Amino acid sequence: MTFLNEVTTRYPDAISFAPGRPYEGFFEVDSVHTYLDTYLEHLAKDRGMPSERVRTELFQYGRTKGIVHELIARTLEADEDLRVDPEALVVTVGAQEGMLLVLRALFASPRDVLLVSSPCYVGITGAARLLDIAVEFVPEGPGGADPAALAAAATRLRAAGRRPRAFYVVPDFANPSGTSMATEDRHRLLATAAEHDLLVIEDDPYGFFGTDPLPRPTLKALDPDRLVVHLGSFAKTCFPGARLGYVVADQEVVHPDGRRGLLADELAKLKSMTTVNTPSLSQAVIGGMLLHHGFRLREANERSRRFYARNMATLLDCLDAAFPAAERTALGLDWNAPEGGFFAVVTVPFTADDAALERCARAWGVLWTPMAGFHPAGGGTNDLRLSCSCLEPADIAEGVRRLAGFLREAV
Amino acid sequence: MTFLNEVTTRYPDAISFAPGRPYEGFFEVDSVHTYLDTYLEHLAKDRGMPSERVRTELFQYGRTKGIVHELIARTLEADEDLRVDPEALVVTVGAQEGMLLVLRALFASPRDVLLVSSPCYVGITGAARLLDIAVEFVPEGPGGADPAALAAAATRLRAAGRRPRAFYVVPDFANPSGTSMATEDRHRLLATAAEHDLLVIEDDPYGFFGTDPLPRPTLKALDPDRLVVHLGSFAKTCFPGARLGYVVADQEVVHPDGRRGLLADELAKLKSMTTVNTPSLSQAVIGGMLLHHGFRLREANERSRRFYARNMATLLDCLDAAFPAAERTALGLDWNAPEGGFFAVVTVPFTADDAALERCARAWGVLWTPMAGFHPAGGGTNDLRLSCSCLEPADIAEGVRRLAGFLREAV
Repeated sequence: MTFLNEVTTRYPDAISFAPGRPYEGFFEVDSVHTYLDTYLEHLAKDRGMPSERVRTELFQYGRTKGIVHELIARTLEADEDLRVDPEALVVTVGAQEGMLLVLRALFASPRDVLLVSSPCYVGITGAARLLDIAVEFVPEGPGGADPAALAAAATRLRAAGRRPRAFYVVPDFANPSGTSMATEDRHRLLATAAEHDLLVIEDDPYGFFGTDPLPRPTLKALDPDRLVVHLGSFAKTCFPGARLGYVVADQEVVHPDGRRGLLADELAKLKSMTTVNTPSLSQAVIGGMLLHHGFRLREANERSRRFYARNMATLLDCLDAAFPAAERTALGLDWNAPEGGFFAVVTVPFTADDAALERCARAWGVLWTPMAGFHPAGGGTNDLRLSCSCLEPADIAEGVRRLAGFLREAV
Repeated sequence: MTFLNEVTTRYPDAISFAPGRPYEGFFEVDSVHTYLDTYLEHLAKDRGMPSERVRTELFQYGRTKGIVHELIARTLEADEDLRVDPEALVVTVGAQEGMLLVLRALFASPRDVLLVSSPCYVGITGAARLLDIAVEFVPEGPGGADPAALAAAATRLRAAGRRPRAFYVVPDFANPSGTSMATEDRHRLLATAAEHDLLVIEDDPYGFFGTDPLPRPTLKALDPDRLVVHLGSFAKTCFPGARLGYVVADQEVVHPDGRRGLLADELAKLKSMTTVNTPSLSQAVIGGMLLHHGFRLREANERSRRFYARNMATLLDCLDAAFPAAERTALGLDWNAPEGGFFAVVTVPFTADDAALERCARAWGVLWTPMAGFHPAGGGTNDLRLSCSCLEPADIAEGVRRLAGFLREAV
């Protein structure tokens, strides 16, 4: 991503389909004060804390697993119909810290292998690299993670003496591919995990943002056997600057001395070695936001959902208009049609690498992300990722016009 | 520490010399709003950012190395006479994340060994354990880290085919021992590090809190050869709930392709795999605090320094009064006399373990920390740590009265 950042700096006026950031137009600076006060009032009134105790809660070192776990549990119930023991929640510094903790807790032996869809989010492969954990890639299909490919990979690894331990998956509107899993594939994935003795690490940052307002169930909501460790993030549903995420880790752990505990408590032990605890400031502001919205964060995000849905529709409509079906085929171009989220992928008949990006930025004033970076095992050289999350519709239209010019020139 | 937490819960009315937390009496809830506004005004007025840009700064994903690096650099210059390139700073989620990043960046081969004083802070050994880094312990003297013992350990390790890579040290008022290094020992430590090709990881959370208001120089301030990686923390000088720390990593790194860069940029790459970036909320509030105090954080902490100094004096005076010199010797008791900070150590002629702590809590209503937990290589079984940072002087006096009762009974 270093080159992409550099190009972005060199062409500040380019329209950028690169960053996977949330739209900023709905952020209001003053709301931070309001949310903070809402949380502090909640401590004083709903929880009956005297003012010294409220002060401690905000300023002092806090509970390692977090202080807004009960508020998050209530929100998961209202938004996802997910009933979670608050003690099974660990509040983390973004989902990224959650990934690091989960990988460190689950992977013990050099035989252990993490399975990841390809293409994949760079955060999970980064965390695995930091911890020297072996990763194997499972090709994704147009419908997202592919249970049959996962089964084949697990079988092959086990035959080679390795232990496939867990599968990382973003079931809704994945970064970078934009794909989503059908509900029946979610059931099939869980059956595959059970059969092959795999845990599933579900990462769900974009789940609220379907073009269809009716959501699909999270894997965790379909998981009576506790095979799913669920990672959540408030970066897209509240705001990234709080860096607030969480892990639902309700798996039972049996200690060498026979005592039983929750995976969440193992994650907490590790967290005391990474960040000690998640900033109470961030927890207070996001906690206040959850309270303010009556724990209905999905409802509170309806305006954002419609915005992102319209952006995705604009992006796809403009691509369709620029390259009608026959011409698209003749030129060897294609793209997918994500059902929500921030990302779509365009396939081109030339190498979509840093050099192509540089030409496109210089001559056409438009930026995108080469997909090869999301394929650590190779591949994606003819794909580019377009993110439409933080642009206004008019910029998307102009951006596609410029991109079309570049594509016509480059094919 | 699990047992200690449990005992603390079971004896809520005990006076506790256990937690190494800052005093809460000076925290003011409303100040969070003030500091946040101060920072936002700084962005708008001093840095000329339009309101949309300010909004981005607060809410959006931010620079991996942090957004208040320039404010921290100005503070280090005013407080420590330390001139640091802001680009060599990485703002972290507490000093703990800094430790994790620094260890991951510096330790590559299984031959590499981290040297740590014994007794030592559990955060550094925890981070090393998380990363499977080998640790060797160097006995601390009454004057803190012992350069001669460090040299001996480095020589012994190298002779055994290992690579002593870095030495972790808290030069001022160490946790848990309360010891401080004399200025001449600081020079000697740096000479030893240079001679034995070691880096020094300096952790400095308590430096402002000397009983003598005239500070000693940090190791980093004495380090023209850039042997010192300096970890800073705002947990004690501002407040822990922000979880804000930083690393000064101005070492030059030469890449395989010959390019040169800063260690700080290597830490940033790793940080993108641990927490992506430090919450801008926390950075904004602490940044506002630095601005509010004109970058003179040491001056702003003068009231705290006096408070902690008086508490330490009260603790030592009460111990002296309870056990006059002759009786102290006769009973086989002893304690050190730290020149500042939060901690002192009492040596007793019996095993100061969890069972002793339990008896003391039940019969005498006073808590302390067994020191053995800070000696991972063994030792400290006759020592207990007393923290006097978050108690009022009257509670310290009553706590020592109770402790004296316990000690008379136990010896």
